[in-house]
Amino acid sequence: MYDRIKGFRDFYPGEMAARRETTDSIEDTARRYGFREIGTPALERAELWTDKSGDDIVDELYAFEDQGGRHVTLTPELTPTVARMVVAKQQELSKPIKWFSTRPFWRYEQVQQGRQREFYQTNVDIFGSSEPEADAEILAWAADALTDLGLTGEHFEFRISHRDILGGLFESYDADVDVEAGIRAVDKSGKLSTPEYHDLLADAGLTYDQAVEFDELVSAGDLEDVVSFAETDRVADAVANLQAVLEAAEDFGAREYCTISLETARGLDYYTGVVFECFDSAGEVSRSIFGGGRYDDLIEQFGGQPTPAVGVAPGHATLSLLCQRAGVWPEETVTTDYYVLQVGDTRPEAAQLTRTLRKRGHVVETDIAGRSFGSQLTYADSINAETVVIAGEQDLANDEVTIKDMESGEQTQVPLETFPGEYERPTFDDFV
Amino acid sequence: MYDRIKGFRDFYPGEMAARRETTDSIEDTARRYGFREIGTPALERAELWTDKSGDDIVDELYAFEDQGGRHVTLTPELTPTVARMVVAKQQELSKPIKWFSTRPFWRYEQVQQGRQREFYQTNVDIFGSSEPEADAEILAWAADALTDLGLTGEHFEFRISHRDILGGLFESYDADVDVEAGIRAVDKSGKLSTPEYHDLLADAGLTYDQAVEFDELVSAGDLEDVVSFAETDRVADAVANLQAVLEAAEDFGAREYCTISLETARGLDYYTGVVFECFDSAGEVSRSIFGGGRYDDLIEQFGGQPTPAVGVAPGHATLSLLCQRAGVWPEETVTTDYYVLQVGDTRPEAAQLTRTLRKRGHVVETDIAGRSFGSQLTYADSINAETVVIAGEQDLANDEVTIKDMESGEQTQVPLETFPGEYERPTFDDFV
Repeated sequence: MYDRIKGFRDFYPGEMAARRETTDSIEDTARRYGFREIGTPALERAELWTDKSGDDIVDELYAFEDQGGRHVTLTPELTPTVARMVVAKQQELSKPIKWFSTRPFWRYEQVQQGRQREFYQTNVDIFGSSEPEADAEILAWAADALTDLGLTGEHFEFRISHRDILGGLFESYDADVDVEAGIRAVDKSGKLSTPEYHDLLADAGLTYDQAVEFDELVSAGDLEDVVSFAETDRVADAVANLQAVLEAAEDFGAREYCTISLETARGLDYYTGVVFECFDSAGEVSRSIFGGGRYDDLIEQFGGQPTPAVGVAPGHATLSLLCQRAGVWPEETVTTDYYVLQVGDTRPEAAQLTRTLRKRGHVVETDIAGRSFGSQLTYADSINAETVVIAGEQDLANDEVTIKDMESGEQTQVPLETFPGEYERPTFDDFV
Repeated sequence: MYDRIKGFRDFYPGEMAARRETTDSIEDTARRYGFREIGTPALERAELWTDKSGDDIVDELYAFEDQGGRHVTLTPELTPTVARMVVAKQQELSKPIKWFSTRPFWRYEQVQQGRQREFYQTNVDIFGSSEPEADAEILAWAADALTDLGLTGEHFEFRISHRDILGGLFESYDADVDVEAGIRAVDKSGKLSTPEYHDLLADAGLTYDQAVEFDELVSAGDLEDVVSFAETDRVADAVANLQAVLEAAEDFGAREYCTISLETARGLDYYTGVVFECFDSAGEVSRSIFGGGRYDDLIEQFGGQPTPAVGVAPGHATLSLLCQRAGVWPEETVTTDYYVLQVGDTRPEAAQLTRTLRKRGHVVETDIAGRSFGSQLTYADSINAETVVIAGEQDLANDEVTIKDMESGEQTQVPLETFPGEYERPTFDDFV
């Protein structure tokens, strides 16, 4: 007997049905926004990640050498792949480019609740617009995707900031600050004690007094205070951009879900502008549910023309935790419209009924295992059949079938010419 | 600029839309048959393949050692994974188990038309029934999946045989025949010259005279001749089983697509009973489109209770070739119901219209890039917008919008209260 690999999940039909319903809903929201589905490879050259330094992802790669001697890796995220695809067809693609896709990614990291080594995300990105409306559309899509799943503002909030606010604040100090290290410190601050956080800020180049001051300013989150403290165009512009994004989000229906939170930094170095993270409002899911933001420099870093970009990538594992705690996760069960039960040698007639019902779009099973009456009924119950159509020799000799409602157990005989006849989706109730 | 890896495809929106439509159709057919979707890992322990010998797949594995020292491989096929999943929950799963899934697989092999190193399949399997109705249901599903795509019996045929016919024929010779090598020889015969084929049969243990005789008997494909030649229960039982499967396929509506072809052997060693391959009837796609069959021993080999099994796995690459040559491949393009065009400072009103139309389920885009009138119209054309809703300052001051049909170029002004108003999906034609 073989085991699956740690961090890799098998999804059996009940759980998979709930996942499928959720994924379909998220993707339907994306389609209505005019995001277009793309398909992307599971493997990429490892240098898409290793060429950059300072990225924690590299330590978590499933990287190896293929039989052709290529250094390849299972992709731990989608962004470098879509950047590569944009660069490859930059001239012929009309802008803005609006893409989505749902697929697994792989990271060799510590397995915990809501975090497996194989995990699914729906990536949604816009390339070619630096306008605040693009950031706002990403926020609005994310909000609609969640509310379309049945979540409300009571369940989630988007904590939003701008990379240049933190970067500009660090720069405004008369000190030699490693800005990226400082931003990573802020990104981790929620998981650290205050002294640990201040130590990290000091490691990045602030004095302890500055670290305390910085912490107070950032955690208070007052945009006017931040602008007047920094006194730089960079911070003033960042605040103005953040406010413009929030104004567009108001028009797009997403403002009510957004909270300004300057401690929201996003771990990845490639973000350049507005960044945001989705959190459980009730705090029951303590980690960020997912996040996104603007990354205007990446396409150029990948060899393309300078192209602004903004995106978000809800992870399905944390999202399912949020939905479960909010009570909106779909029931993990399979459903069946009809089971056509054969009694005696009625295979041709049962097959005909089965085919007719399937042609009308229904989920229909019939006996393929030579089962007894009771055994077929048990099976029909196990697949949650709503209606059992009993095709018995005697009934059929009278041009009838028996329709059984599996919820109530009631049944009735109906003429074969009326079942399914003109009914789109006939059930027991149509014949009593 | 980074390249994608050889044998790995990027799918841009137009092509992806055609693939999605096809996949959705195939999966919808599976759902109506009562196959239940499962989700499976991309990585498995390599021993799921390397423990077996004589399987060509092993040479094509993307196998490596992970950071935890596990010997793992990207999965080249689904069957061992579903076998592992059946064994893991054998007691609690009600039988027959009917599963499907669509996902990529990976094999390091020669790249050619219709064969990439990353390729998509929809796997459909039944566990727990040894009855001919189970084999026939697999055939019927495959036939319905293809006809639901618009293909007909003019486009495809299922060449069907039974593993024990070839195995029993080899056994019936008074010679020391390596039966698996012999079956592999038959499987390859279509790609070989007659002398090469006979050489392979001789390598497997037949004399040259026997090889010629065997070749004639098998290529003639007369079941009665085969039974009387072999004079063994094994061959007689296999022929009877094949005929029973074809009779059930008649009831299930799939018989018309099936041709008996004893040269159909399927390369994989795990098949045990009926095997079949789908071919292009016109011969334009020369390779097998896909194949399937019965593999009753695999679950026990994987440490489970003996459990009969039968399945099929259409590959999407060869299937798309078939659909293209048959003229039923969907148009590779994106579609858009509405583009809401902003003229002047009309973002709030345009956003409201956009949200209302999206809520009704339509694909709707609006300006998120601060574009001019002409530039927005060009973009709307590039995404094949059916209707452009022009939200201009002057129109809105009069409580009107302009509705433009992008096909004809005609446009008309309509009161804001009637657009979209009570219309489910209003177009230009509703207002003239």
